[in-house]
Amino acid sequence: MDKKYSVAILGATGNVGRLILEILEQRNFPYSSIKLLASPRSVGQKVISPKGHEYIVELACPSAFDGVDMVFASAGSAVSKELAPEIIKRGGVIIDNSSAFRMESGVPLVVPQVNADDIKNHKGIIANPNCSTAPLVLVLKPLDERFGIKRVVVSTYQSVSGAGKSAMDELTTASRKLLQNPEPALSSDEHKYEAFVHPIAFNLIPQIDVFTENGYTKEEMKLINESRKMLHRPDLAITCTAVRVPVYISHSESVNVEFEQDVSLEDIRSVMESTPDLVLEDNPSQNQYPRPAQVAGKDPVFVGRLREDESRANSFNFWLVSDNLRIGAALNAVRIGEALVSQLQKVSA
Amino acid sequence: MDKKYSVAILGATGNVGRLILEILEQRNFPYSSIKLLASPRSVGQKVISPKGHEYIVELACPSAFDGVDMVFASAGSAVSKELAPEIIKRGGVIIDNSSAFRMESGVPLVVPQVNADDIKNHKGIIANPNCSTAPLVLVLKPLDERFGIKRVVVSTYQSVSGAGKSAMDELTTASRKLLQNPEPALSSDEHKYEAFVHPIAFNLIPQIDVFTENGYTKEEMKLINESRKMLHRPDLAITCTAVRVPVYISHSESVNVEFEQDVSLEDIRSVMESTPDLVLEDNPSQNQYPRPAQVAGKDPVFVGRLREDESRANSFNFWLVSDNLRIGAALNAVRIGEALVSQLQKVSA
Repeated sequence: MDKKYSVAILGATGNVGRLILEILEQRNFPYSSIKLLASPRSVGQKVISPKGHEYIVELACPSAFDGVDMVFASAGSAVSKELAPEIIKRGGVIIDNSSAFRMESGVPLVVPQVNADDIKNHKGIIANPNCSTAPLVLVLKPLDERFGIKRVVVSTYQSVSGAGKSAMDELTTASRKLLQNPEPALSSDEHKYEAFVHPIAFNLIPQIDVFTENGYTKEEMKLINESRKMLHRPDLAITCTAVRVPVYISHSESVNVEFEQDVSLEDIRSVMESTPDLVLEDNPSQNQYPRPAQVAGKDPVFVGRLREDESRANSFNFWLVSDNLRIGAALNAVRIGEALVSQLQKVSA
Repeated sequence: MDKKYSVAILGATGNVGRLILEILEQRNFPYSSIKLLASPRSVGQKVISPKGHEYIVELACPSAFDGVDMVFASAGSAVSKELAPEIIKRGGVIIDNSSAFRMESGVPLVVPQVNADDIKNHKGIIANPNCSTAPLVLVLKPLDERFGIKRVVVSTYQSVSGAGKSAMDELTTASRKLLQNPEPALSSDEHKYEAFVHPIAFNLIPQIDVFTENGYTKEEMKLINESRKMLHRPDLAITCTAVRVPVYISHSESVNVEFEQDVSLEDIRSVMESTPDLVLEDNPSQNQYPRPAQVAGKDPVFVGRLREDESRANSFNFWLVSDNLRIGAALNAVRIGEALVSQLQKVSA
């Protein structure tokens, strides 16, 4: 009989933590037990999983990890930094959704469809990439292998759920307030806001995370650096502008990509059509292309608006949409867990 | 005493028509009279201008243009195509906001700060560019003159007001309906919609206008072709992805531009700072950059997030926001009128 694993979810009451529990059940992950861990204010909370199992949230303290094989962490960088050594000390592996360890040289940063082999070298920590980066590398990897990517220019359209449940609630509250005006378009948006540095209702914020010295935001640098690490292309020419939009779930990206080799639109389409977990939804004559509200709740990465960019040879534009809580976070974390299980079973076989 | 002109506004009850009336008054345009013209369903409607003048909307029929010197038209391509010959026949000039004549070789397509001289060759029609293109060329022109643009990659974030007053109302109605749900994020958006090909509330639509054979939308091709015409760079390498966002007013653009010459960030900044009608709002340390709801109602083109693109030499990213109803439509139309008046006065002097 296959071994089963003792699993914990750290940050179990957040957007991503709740979804990890749901996906572990859905995909029949080989767990013997699941512990839900969170900060003191959530301790004692009762959580009923989609399959009807009842859990009580426990305190995320070091001793909680005694006997735990695998921890899915989504409680922010500070918590991950504090608790990772405690998990490792007790023989567990942390699959971390925060940005705390992603760029550390000894830490595998993994989208299993892209670089599952990197998991082999883990030392107790496996990092889950940024929510805009995971779907992007899933699309770019097979194209890079076949045609050699020369340069990528990305502009993102990121939903508020990337900033947590409270950000989703803020979009709702602020939108409702603005819509009480007879002419919402002409109304000031100076309502109370906390989730972002500016109000987001019926507006755009071209800033995600804080600014770094080069004028880019941390979010933009995550997409750039994490793509390079996962594609094993440390010098890949890639640039990014990251923008928050008033959408609840799913991140969208307008992507321009240039290739080293001569390549046709049909070549690109053919690679995309044969890429697992990528759905090409691209039928202009029927006005069909992915849209965030329709992609929310779905597992694949959706691509549409694929077309030649006539401004440069071997260049193409496409539009990518994916559920940032799934492929961008919870689903990818569980897939990392599955890849880890598969490697452990090979070793023990 | 300077000559005054008999003016008509065609499509006077729409988003842009109403604003043209307001801006003609604000800027003390030298008019002797203003006629408001519209389709039969608006005839007889009373309009009170911001300065308190009362107008009655009249029928847009050929004889309405008897004795009219200058027509500001914003009633769509079909109406412009039908009535332009009638206006010209009667000695008037049409300043047309539709796309009907923009790419005709004998028709000047003008942003006065960019190519006012092109007006000289008009034959009764002067075209006003697309609402995303006008602000873009205003920013690109002085950069192209100084450093030579090699290539431009644009992704747009366009507000619903570009599709008219009814589209703004639809965003309001649809958003209110979705927000009646206790969990708007998880609700279906399959409400009634007419303004766009898909519902826009809390969603994105990566399609503006219809598709052309090459997989680009007409909106994208307008931005490409009109930029080339106004910059007098018929072969300019430029590509575009145009996306509708749930914002009321102001279009935003994520722009990546590569130059022929060696150029520094400071060079670019210095040119932008000295460009009239361009406001550089770019202070990352204070989280300052233009946002659409804050730019709505303002005249300049706002630029922020200016930074080097390290993925290619002499390349830069920036974020542009402008009021699509003003610089993108009504204000630019009135400025064309002012440039025309100034040329007529030179000729008669």
